[in-house]
Amino acid sequence: MNAASTTAAPSTSTVETIKEKALRLSVLSMMATTAAGSGHPTSCMSAAELVAGTFFYAMKFDPKNPNSPDGDRFVLSKGHAAPVLYAALAEAGVFPESRLMTLRQFGSELEGHPTPRVPGVDAATGSLGQGLSVGAGLAIAARLDKKNTRVYVLVGDGEMAEGQIWEAAEFAGHYKLDNITLLADVNALGQSEPTMYQHDMEVYRRKFEAEGFAAEVIDGHDVAAVLAALDRAKATKGRPQAILARTIKGHGVPSVAGKQHWHGKPFSKEELPGALKEIGLTIQVPPDPGKSYARTSLPEPPDFPAPAAPDYPAGKVVATREAYGYALKRLGAVNPHLVAMSGDVKNSTFSEIFQDAYPDHFYQGYIAEQNLVSAGVGLAAHGKVPFLDTFACFLSRAYDQVRMAAISRSNINLCGSHCGVSIGEDGPSQMALEDIAMFRAIHSSAVFYPSDAVSAERLTEVMARRPGINYLRTSRPKTPILYSKDEKFPVPGFKIARQSAQDKATVIGAGITLHEALKAADELKAQGTAIRVIDLYCVKPLDGKALGEQLAATGGRLVTVEDHWPEGGIGEAVLSALTQVGVAPAKFKLLAVNGLPHSGKPEELVDAFGISARHIAEAVRQIS
Amino acid sequence: MNAASTTAAPSTSTVETIKEKALRLSVLSMMATTAAGSGHPTSCMSAAELVAGTFFYAMKFDPKNPNSPDGDRFVLSKGHAAPVLYAALAEAGVFPESRLMTLRQFGSELEGHPTPRVPGVDAATGSLGQGLSVGAGLAIAARLDKKNTRVYVLVGDGEMAEGQIWEAAEFAGHYKLDNITLLADVNALGQSEPTMYQHDMEVYRRKFEAEGFAAEVIDGHDVAAVLAALDRAKATKGRPQAILARTIKGHGVPSVAGKQHWHGKPFSKEELPGALKEIGLTIQVPPDPGKSYARTSLPEPPDFPAPAAPDYPAGKVVATREAYGYALKRLGAVNPHLVAMSGDVKNSTFSEIFQDAYPDHFYQGYIAEQNLVSAGVGLAAHGKVPFLDTFACFLSRAYDQVRMAAISRSNINLCGSHCGVSIGEDGPSQMALEDIAMFRAIHSSAVFYPSDAVSAERLTEVMARRPGINYLRTSRPKTPILYSKDEKFPVPGFKIARQSAQDKATVIGAGITLHEALKAADELKAQGTAIRVIDLYCVKPLDGKALGEQLAATGGRLVTVEDHWPEGGIGEAVLSALTQVGVAPAKFKLLAVNGLPHSGKPEELVDAFGISARHIAEAVRQIS
Repeated sequence: MNAASTTAAPSTSTVETIKEKALRLSVLSMMATTAAGSGHPTSCMSAAELVAGTFFYAMKFDPKNPNSPDGDRFVLSKGHAAPVLYAALAEAGVFPESRLMTLRQFGSELEGHPTPRVPGVDAATGSLGQGLSVGAGLAIAARLDKKNTRVYVLVGDGEMAEGQIWEAAEFAGHYKLDNITLLADVNALGQSEPTMYQHDMEVYRRKFEAEGFAAEVIDGHDVAAVLAALDRAKATKGRPQAILARTIKGHGVPSVAGKQHWHGKPFSKEELPGALKEIGLTIQVPPDPGKSYARTSLPEPPDFPAPAAPDYPAGKVVATREAYGYALKRLGAVNPHLVAMSGDVKNSTFSEIFQDAYPDHFYQGYIAEQNLVSAGVGLAAHGKVPFLDTFACFLSRAYDQVRMAAISRSNINLCGSHCGVSIGEDGPSQMALEDIAMFRAIHSSAVFYPSDAVSAERLTEVMARRPGINYLRTSRPKTPILYSKDEKFPVPGFKIARQSAQDKATVIGAGITLHEALKAADELKAQGTAIRVIDLYCVKPLDGKALGEQLAATGGRLVTVEDHWPEGGIGEAVLSALTQVGVAPAKFKLLAVNGLPHSGKPEELVDAFGISARHIAEAVRQIS
Repeated sequence: MNAASTTAAPSTSTVETIKEKALRLSVLSMMATTAAGSGHPTSCMSAAELVAGTFFYAMKFDPKNPNSPDGDRFVLSKGHAAPVLYAALAEAGVFPESRLMTLRQFGSELEGHPTPRVPGVDAATGSLGQGLSVGAGLAIAARLDKKNTRVYVLVGDGEMAEGQIWEAAEFAGHYKLDNITLLADVNALGQSEPTMYQHDMEVYRRKFEAEGFAAEVIDGHDVAAVLAALDRAKATKGRPQAILARTIKGHGVPSVAGKQHWHGKPFSKEELPGALKEIGLTIQVPPDPGKSYARTSLPEPPDFPAPAAPDYPAGKVVATREAYGYALKRLGAVNPHLVAMSGDVKNSTFSEIFQDAYPDHFYQGYIAEQNLVSAGVGLAAHGKVPFLDTFACFLSRAYDQVRMAAISRSNINLCGSHCGVSIGEDGPSQMALEDIAMFRAIHSSAVFYPSDAVSAERLTEVMARRPGINYLRTSRPKTPILYSKDEKFPVPGFKIARQSAQDKATVIGAGITLHEALKAADELKAQGTAIRVIDLYCVKPLDGKALGEQLAATGGRLVTVEDHWPEGGIGEAVLSALTQVGVAPAKFKLLAVNGLPHSGKPEELVDAFGISARHIAEAVRQIS
């Protein structure tokens, strides 16, 4: 880095104080994991000086308000080193040291890997390689709020094999996020064997320098070097910084230091006294009184006034994907917390409409979906309302990140366009056929699937207010407007798009298949058969009871039809919701994409793969 | 690169020939996309010289046998440039030029993005950033077979934002795969705006050099430079090579060259003649006679003799994850095509047992799950039988890659260990709770979920023989042996683990919940209630009829119980299979993980989250 001359060296007494802190962090990590009977003490010991230096020398941190956006942030990307983070929080006064001894217990907020239940933690980690992206989101949010706060991200060397680290690095470099300092704990040992580059520190330096970081290599156990590097990082302008620390796994206890087969292995109760003797410190910790320090309130999306209503002339055909863009723009006018990011498809997902109106609140995420989602988690942790978009099929690239967002109790909004075979000529690689299954199986999720532009707009507004993981599935083809601009779309809920007292069956569709169902209703009506048609704009949560009433009114005969695989989609969701309230369809047909699709015109594919009006009408006839 | 002095410069006539070929590839790409009315001509035109040089100068390629493992391979990672690849295949004689004009039509094998339906294509592309990993798999396979063949991978600059490219690059660099040549078509324009680094070629050079590549920057439209670079690449030993080509999107047609808003946009029928005039070549192509050139046979897993039977002493408790390791070792003795790779968890998933026996057939994949899966696709395309493992939750990191493997008609085997809350103290980040939903919604997939070591071993053998995407869900806890070593496990299928003529309900479980169901059966029996217990070792495909018979024999009363979210898992799968054969449970309880879990002991969590014997017995009582 470039700032050596502008900062005075830390004093000897400061260095000694941090050394003592680091030693305490190592010892407390060892004690906590021994008490737990599982965990990763050696992965904590390699990072003790980095963590101590960051928490007790570099960071602006208020232990009374450890998640405040006015303080600096710390993201432990190598989540398995949770005990060293917890020890730092205890030493900082967030909770007493005794609490550390409840690590990994059923009733403790101090879980095996960090979650935001722990005060001071912004995002769950433990699936490796995600922390730098979360940090990038926090850094963008701080920049948007013009806050002079910094983000420290501690990564391990093993996890630097994850591509997401490099997505995040290029993102941080590109946007010149000089409020991010990466601390790399290069202890050279992975879980099962030495890491790819072991202690070849220059490889890491070259890689981070290539990404636009100010990078330097230090001895991660030399506290004076750690503090000086932290000083230089803080003084660096215009670039994120990487402090690449050569460390030893299990540092401080020579009998295990640098040895393989000590990953994820605590000292036994019998081994611990000897290990503490080796490291040279014993800490007496009183019994824990059992008081929980779990955060009682977690971030919720900020409230905002009602936006203007959507406005489409009657008879207009508009793709739901385009309506999403208009909705974001309308929301931007009343909610200053909105931030949109796109994976280089803003002109297909239409978030460019928002960008044109609010350019400072739009980030180009490039083709890097993992970083896109985890950065969203960082934005949300800082109180922003992220809307993240790409083609729905490419959200499968970030499924782990969405899963972790749910464990983070994060409030993020995802929009996936181009669902199903109805995209047409581009072929199966661009068709999302598993996204409903994927998002349904996410804790705290809602799955919205609009069939017209008004519902797409209104559901986007619902998402901005709803805590948790919200997913909007938009379609490529243009579809007619179905609803008046003031229609409400409650969650859970559905709309009855067609009904009569003579309905012989209920057909449930959404998106393109709702329009096919309406065509089928016309066709059947011409033949003398009336059917009920339901627009399932909200696929999760589902109100099984209300759906059951529709079913009961139509002789228990049910057809579901979806532009998705049969597994985990609308049909199974409906069936599951009905059965759990004790309702079973008397007769049932599940129509879904029935083979591996290929290129073709949308209407050819919708028909060839079994979900067109013709198939719906035939299914109704079969069960009538 | 280092080999300039050892190769003679290509002759002027060779350069002229390749120039003409490149021009033809551009023109045919323009014509095909205009005929299709969609597609990405400008993305083809930037790559024309690179593709022409590779196909018609560098590659060993037999148009009569374009997927032969004895030939060099070409992977088009930027799949949207499909027309330029198809044009090269046509120019090489694989099919006539007339066929190109069927691009993207319903009946054509020449889809919008490449799939292995096209002769010469080994893996589907179109989800960006996966091709270098596929190439790495092909390169490993060639090395294992001691074949002197090379792999060429063409990537775009936009997709180099994907982390997976860097996972693949570090993998190729680490294993010194000098039989891989990466061709980067750096045209500086993404879909929605200029790429991150635009034409800053030195950034790419630094990045690839940092990964251990021999990298050089060339003008991608200077054919002599392209050919010389290909020569130097071929002569480079001990390192993969990156030819970083500065190119212009839409090269050759000045009115569009280097212009934004020409991504994914064909010339209209009206514009085409003018564009062809600009580029200086018109090709007359006869009408296509309509003959398909789709590959009629795709790779299947090679047959092999029966391995030795598993051998566990009666009364032994063995984790299914450990049995997987033993099974691989047994299979390795009879199937020389097996290759195992692990995401740095071989000591948890137990693939290290195979590594110890067959070290040359094991690759350390490090913590990079995306590359792990796509490299498996490359291995399979070369006739290997890949077994890829990590914790089940981390396979969510590679969901897009699994999806693309299915579109590739690939035969890959995935093992995910540590499923569900029964892993205990490590907490939710390490618990797979969505993997069944995820893998069910994959075309061609089978989902296996063994409850004892014998079935785990036998199902691993089933996977090695079954075409398509096979998933084995293994558990962390040790469980008792249930089956004799010669038990058969057909697909689809299930086992009746407990039955009597008096059974009041059917309980379906798998893995840890099967053992909970057996405990519940004991408890209920002591209270005078008999239940039927089913081991659903095969979750997909399901035989609804056979399950329906069990249900009919137990009064239509059904309980399903799974260590997974309720969405998309065993309960919904069973319900869906039953309903589709016209069977509806009279009474039904779906037990699944009913809240966001946290750390704790396995037995505490299994009980707290609603899937223990106590909950099963209670559910049976409620519906009896």
